[in-house]
Amino acid sequence: MNFSSKLIEDSVNAFATLPGIGKKTALRLTLHLLNMPTESTESLCEPVLKMRNSIQFCATCHNISDEAVCSICSDRARDRSVICVVESIRDIMAIENTNQYRGLFHILGGVISPIEGVGPAELNINSLIKRVKKEEVKEIIMAISPTIDGETTIFYLSKQLAEFPVNVTTLARGISFGGELEYADELTLGRSIASRRPYGQ
Amino acid sequence: MNFSSKLIEDSVNAFATLPGIGKKTALRLTLHLLNMPTESTESLCEPVLKMRNSIQFCATCHNISDEAVCSICSDRARDRSVICVVESIRDIMAIENTNQYRGLFHILGGVISPIEGVGPAELNINSLIKRVKKEEVKEIIMAISPTIDGETTIFYLSKQLAEFPVNVTTLARGISFGGELEYADELTLGRSIASRRPYGQ
Repeated sequence: MNFSSKLIEDSVNAFATLPGIGKKTALRLTLHLLNMPTESTESLCEPVLKMRNSIQFCATCHNISDEAVCSICSDRARDRSVICVVESIRDIMAIENTNQYRGLFHILGGVISPIEGVGPAELNINSLIKRVKKEEVKEIIMAISPTIDGETTIFYLSKQLAEFPVNVTTLARGISFGGELEYADELTLGRSIASRRPYGQ
Repeated sequence: MNFSSKLIEDSVNAFATLPGIGKKTALRLTLHLLNMPTESTESLCEPVLKMRNSIQFCATCHNISDEAVCSICSDRARDRSVICVVESIRDIMAIENTNQYRGLFHILGGVISPIEGVGPAELNINSLIKRVKKEEVKEIIMAISPTIDGETTIFYLSKQLAEFPVNVTTLARGISFGGELEYADELTLGRSIASRRPYGQ
């Protein structure tokens, strides 16, 4: 594409580095900013730069935080005997949005994946073990995606945690609420028949 | 959505002001920047801010430009006797990408639209008339979208230009190259039969 302006070209290339944004969308965003007052570009960039430069990670659970300890870890109303182990920040947001969980979290930062060269050393596993040793934890919930890598990670963690007096649990598996039975995959449907439950419980 | 961080929330809201970017995409972009080194956020924002603060508009044709006169107007190799009148910068890019046009441009900045309150005074029409008076212009090509507002604008401009010795032309209308005949709209197909041309011309 010929932009007739180096400034426009640089701006388009900058936007196009973002995931899911190609050259055409990047151009649309650039021309949008050109049509708006100068201040609106500053009010776009300023919070983004500030976020990246000032963000901290919670020393306890590795969640994003504005302070040294995140708002979840410092909330005394939460149940400190349960830790929910998740892959990423996004999973915490998803679980928090359900309003069904009042315990603490621990972000692993990924899952064990030999193909992608991610071993246990690359994940926040040592800090989890330390928390289990130091704090009075009764239950560890493995809220990790049920993929092959996820299952490997759950297996590895459960072995590591076996020596401590904690219950290791995983999320319930089964068909989705509101899901059509005929579209459920065979494995999920098969397992959910095998683990059927008395009605009403 | 609960972001557990004011910084994240501000960044998400900033991204979400852009067209076509909702809260979910804005969060994805924010978390993407968090996963990348700090410098990558700076190399996103710096060119965008520079673009918005340093961009100029060509004094002659109102095209975006890094200098007072744009690269098209200052290109002495271009045919200065033809001016192509377009609505916006994007149209110049589209026409330039065809590599079929070697004349100059003039950006109107929109079309006459009584519904949206855009009259001739809001458009760059006076500067076009001045160019026609001052420069040796032989032809004005109306490369304006064939909508109702576009046609109104072409009609208005052609009246304004009637007193000058210039040819006013419009883009050829007809069925698209590579288009399926059965999907062409009735108006276009009807007109293209009426204005049929000898084969090979």
